[in-house]
Amino acid sequence: MTIQERLLNLRKKMKEKEIDIYIVPTADFHQTEYVGEYFKARKYITNFSGSAGTAVITADEARLWTDGRYFIQAAEQIAGTTVELMKMGEPGVPAINSYLSDTLKEGGNIGFDGRVTAMGSGTAYEKTAAKKNGKIIYEYDLVGEIWKDRPALSEEPAWLLKQEYAGETTASKLDRIRKYMKEQDASVHILTSLDDICWTLNMRGNDIEFFPLVLSYAVITMDQVHLYINEKKLDAEIKEQFAQDGVVLHPYDAVYEDVREIVAGESVLIDPARLNYALYRNIPDGVKKVEKRNPEVLFKAVKNPVEIENIRKAQIKDSTAHVRFMKWLKENVGKIKITEMSAAEKLDEFRKEMGNFIRPSFEPISSYGEHCALMHYTSSPETDTELKEGSVFLTDTGAGFYEGSTDITRTYALGEIPDIMKEHFTLTLMGHMGLANAKFLHGCTGMNLDLMARKPLWDRDLDFKCGTGHGMGYLLSIHESPAGFRWRYSADDMAVLEEGMVLTDEPGIYIEGSHGVRLENEILVRKGRENEYGQFMYFEILTYIPMDLDAVNADMLPEETKKQLNDYHKAVYEKISPYLNDEEKEWLKKYTREI
Amino acid sequence: MTIQERLLNLRKKMKEKEIDIYIVPTADFHQTEYVGEYFKARKYITNFSGSAGTAVITADEARLWTDGRYFIQAAEQIAGTTVELMKMGEPGVPAINSYLSDTLKEGGNIGFDGRVTAMGSGTAYEKTAAKKNGKIIYEYDLVGEIWKDRPALSEEPAWLLKQEYAGETTASKLDRIRKYMKEQDASVHILTSLDDICWTLNMRGNDIEFFPLVLSYAVITMDQVHLYINEKKLDAEIKEQFAQDGVVLHPYDAVYEDVREIVAGESVLIDPARLNYALYRNIPDGVKKVEKRNPEVLFKAVKNPVEIENIRKAQIKDSTAHVRFMKWLKENVGKIKITEMSAAEKLDEFRKEMGNFIRPSFEPISSYGEHCALMHYTSSPETDTELKEGSVFLTDTGAGFYEGSTDITRTYALGEIPDIMKEHFTLTLMGHMGLANAKFLHGCTGMNLDLMARKPLWDRDLDFKCGTGHGMGYLLSIHESPAGFRWRYSADDMAVLEEGMVLTDEPGIYIEGSHGVRLENEILVRKGRENEYGQFMYFEILTYIPMDLDAVNADMLPEETKKQLNDYHKAVYEKISPYLNDEEKEWLKKYTREI
Repeated sequence: MTIQERLLNLRKKMKEKEIDIYIVPTADFHQTEYVGEYFKARKYITNFSGSAGTAVITADEARLWTDGRYFIQAAEQIAGTTVELMKMGEPGVPAINSYLSDTLKEGGNIGFDGRVTAMGSGTAYEKTAAKKNGKIIYEYDLVGEIWKDRPALSEEPAWLLKQEYAGETTASKLDRIRKYMKEQDASVHILTSLDDICWTLNMRGNDIEFFPLVLSYAVITMDQVHLYINEKKLDAEIKEQFAQDGVVLHPYDAVYEDVREIVAGESVLIDPARLNYALYRNIPDGVKKVEKRNPEVLFKAVKNPVEIENIRKAQIKDSTAHVRFMKWLKENVGKIKITEMSAAEKLDEFRKEMGNFIRPSFEPISSYGEHCALMHYTSSPETDTELKEGSVFLTDTGAGFYEGSTDITRTYALGEIPDIMKEHFTLTLMGHMGLANAKFLHGCTGMNLDLMARKPLWDRDLDFKCGTGHGMGYLLSIHESPAGFRWRYSADDMAVLEEGMVLTDEPGIYIEGSHGVRLENEILVRKGRENEYGQFMYFEILTYIPMDLDAVNADMLPEETKKQLNDYHKAVYEKISPYLNDEEKEWLKKYTREI
Repeated sequence: MTIQERLLNLRKKMKEKEIDIYIVPTADFHQTEYVGEYFKARKYITNFSGSAGTAVITADEARLWTDGRYFIQAAEQIAGTTVELMKMGEPGVPAINSYLSDTLKEGGNIGFDGRVTAMGSGTAYEKTAAKKNGKIIYEYDLVGEIWKDRPALSEEPAWLLKQEYAGETTASKLDRIRKYMKEQDASVHILTSLDDICWTLNMRGNDIEFFPLVLSYAVITMDQVHLYINEKKLDAEIKEQFAQDGVVLHPYDAVYEDVREIVAGESVLIDPARLNYALYRNIPDGVKKVEKRNPEVLFKAVKNPVEIENIRKAQIKDSTAHVRFMKWLKENVGKIKITEMSAAEKLDEFRKEMGNFIRPSFEPISSYGEHCALMHYTSSPETDTELKEGSVFLTDTGAGFYEGSTDITRTYALGEIPDIMKEHFTLTLMGHMGLANAKFLHGCTGMNLDLMARKPLWDRDLDFKCGTGHGMGYLLSIHESPAGFRWRYSADDMAVLEEGMVLTDEPGIYIEGSHGVRLENEILVRKGRENEYGQFMYFEILTYIPMDLDAVNADMLPEETKKQLNDYHKAVYEKISPYLNDEEKEWLKKYTREI
């Protein structure tokens, strides 16, 4: 079926339901960053396969909003479909809500599947419709109704994360959650975010791309956990553990009706940023809503000692794989054919050799030359490029080991590279090291520290248009709230940096049409000295991979950065050389030499 | 009368009025930073003379909350009074409201004078009392009732600030204010903050210490300004100007009754941070309250071109006076008797020589040796100390010239000083220069930049317990909202740094019982280059006084700071030497030499 035919079918359904504008976002029922095949409705109706985008369909128009990462890809994929590309953030391009306001006729209705729509978006659509004396219709999945060969919902098995990896029992986690519920005078806590649920129940699975999460909802009361899940996923062992923890099983989609049955007088703890609109609307009027960030968000961001020890191991493994990959790349580029995709595969081979590898922890970015300027570039057979000397190769990839997830970026010089690339590499390195070596008082947020990474760039009228780093999940999501490094206010990144949080440090420079540089390590928040000024904090660097000295312009480095870099390289050699053979050691010695 | 006797009298009054806890803040009716003698009730009841502090009195306790600047001074002044010091922000020290919660008995009443209590504080006290089923009693000034020899309210004359200094007419300012009122759907705007009123009306006076402000209230409507003021202050010229600007005069204290008469249906723009509790409570229930920051706050923070040109002149004058003072100090210390107080007088003499000097712009801090560790030390005949070689002298003082206010700190080495003092001076200098030379994207607040000043200290587990800098008023308040440099959230300092704002840059180190260092310049926010990343911003340094090279440990300076310092000293010589005689020039050459 062509996209035009699909749109025709959808418009018939819209007419039947008296829907004037229908919205198809890119989301599952849980607002997960990656979605399973079942949920790719926006791709089905527009042909655009990128990870972010929203389709808005009227009787005579179909428009697709997506961001700068995807302008080129989206334009190619929607060519000839009648779908029109809306380039978000470009001058003259209206935001979705202003388009809705301008387009919706008086008394018109806006439709969307409330289960795949964030509570905030749904509420905004509601207001827009109300202004035109129309209403919203959020009960129908119209794309689902016309999608004949829709893939089934994932039925992949779930598995228990053993205590040697989880470090805290579900019973203990539930104790902490219920204590928080009591503090908030809440008797019921509805969870739809998969990472919060999986963390609480020490459960992992295989239902979405990359992240080892399990499709489910949870309703936590003071003595039970109602878990809404396809029971086929669960084996005897996990059921046994759930029974011990007071977990009661229900069919996956039964949550929508069950929430309607919450009795008046109960007080429900919900997270407006993490609940879908349909569930929110289904909470009866007499029930008090306590709208707070899910307590699991902060709990799971602060890694426990077992997790931290495991994360250190996972990082050593991934660093060792990276060192082998870097050696292989440096020794073979220009000699054998290496492409973006084959390089990514090679790196994952080295990772697999380290053992306990589950799968990549997110969609790999493996880019050469001008592709490095695209922050979220995904190599495909159509774009795959051969690596040649004279430019840079950027790898931003990660592994899910049982010991934890990694998210690591290195940019490598292939042969001799132009001075401007060295300059940009060196500035990025200065920023990266500046943040990693920051010392600060407890109470600081990432907003206080972001400048440490940006200073070398801002001093030269340069910048990168994204945050400097994000929290990291432990075999959960790879971008994890509530702390991160950004200079602008962002509700998801404003938590105080607490001991045990693991974040990324990833400044970069992106020169369109030419090259890009990004350097990313994981760092762990640690307590330093406590004195009359307060509790000082610092970062322990967890990732040990050389910063490519072939790309450094040493003359530009301030003494401070030079010392930081030499100290780091000394540590890289000490930590990684025990896992290497003599030849590899010799090679690493050279690439971690003092400058 | 001793403090104990005063407390006894106060407690009698409390008993009469059935008040269980009585709160005495440091404030006038306008939340001004310095208060006139009439308003020093908190000093009367505790003996503590610092500029910030709140006394809370119960039947058997009297406690004084103050901040880190005043811990030492307060402890000395309340010794033997039965008043107990509560060190704000220290571990285990409750905030005032939690103390009230813990202390107020069931059904107990909290009392305070609603006119000297900020709206936010009064509302918080109200909630605390309500939780105990008690009430607040805000109608009585109990300290006033027992204070027999209370000084009268000031009747000093007001004067018009000429256009050559103000740079914008009252008519133009009112236009902008009324435009903002319309945007907020407000028909009435109540102003109690003296700096907002004086800025709007281009009026200055002499009613409080240091700041040239006039005791008054204003109620701005769409066609009039109702000014509540003691008419004796006004001469024919100012009355004539007021008549042209639609200013109608009323007695000072009539505002409280007039506000009760605002008719239902009006919409009143008020600033919760700047209105007193009594006035807030007097607004009738049927009147809509639009609670926003006063528009005057941002308007006056962004200096107009005339003000900026004047400020540059005022800074050159003050810098010239400082250079002469520094020379005099360096040449005479150890030879003639110089004390903290005589040094301060000498500096003001040099200032007066520069012309157009009105008076000091805030309470001068002139401290030697261990007194420098007291951030807001005020020298008095009892504490006045002779300056001797071997330690540091710190001057944090300012001038009100007609061309604007200054607020400048220098720390000088007297003779050869210990290495640790040089080390602390050098670290402070590194932080000071780091912030002054920051480049940043438009959109940044002081919270993003504060670390630039703190980094050299935090890197060494050191800190200073205050903000790094504050906005500066133009012949108004010296600490001016809405922008400043702090790493912790502070509602008063969170505005985006806009071109035309003038702020201080004043990091320091304070070692109790030994010494202190602070270095403070004024800096002006300027636009830099605009490119694909946004609008870059930078600071123009306005103050040109040498950073004492006798106190610098040059070995500690990073190359970056060394360059910044040399560039700065070069500019100091260029800007100031034209105002000096040959001998002074020769001397300045030496103290601005390249290192």
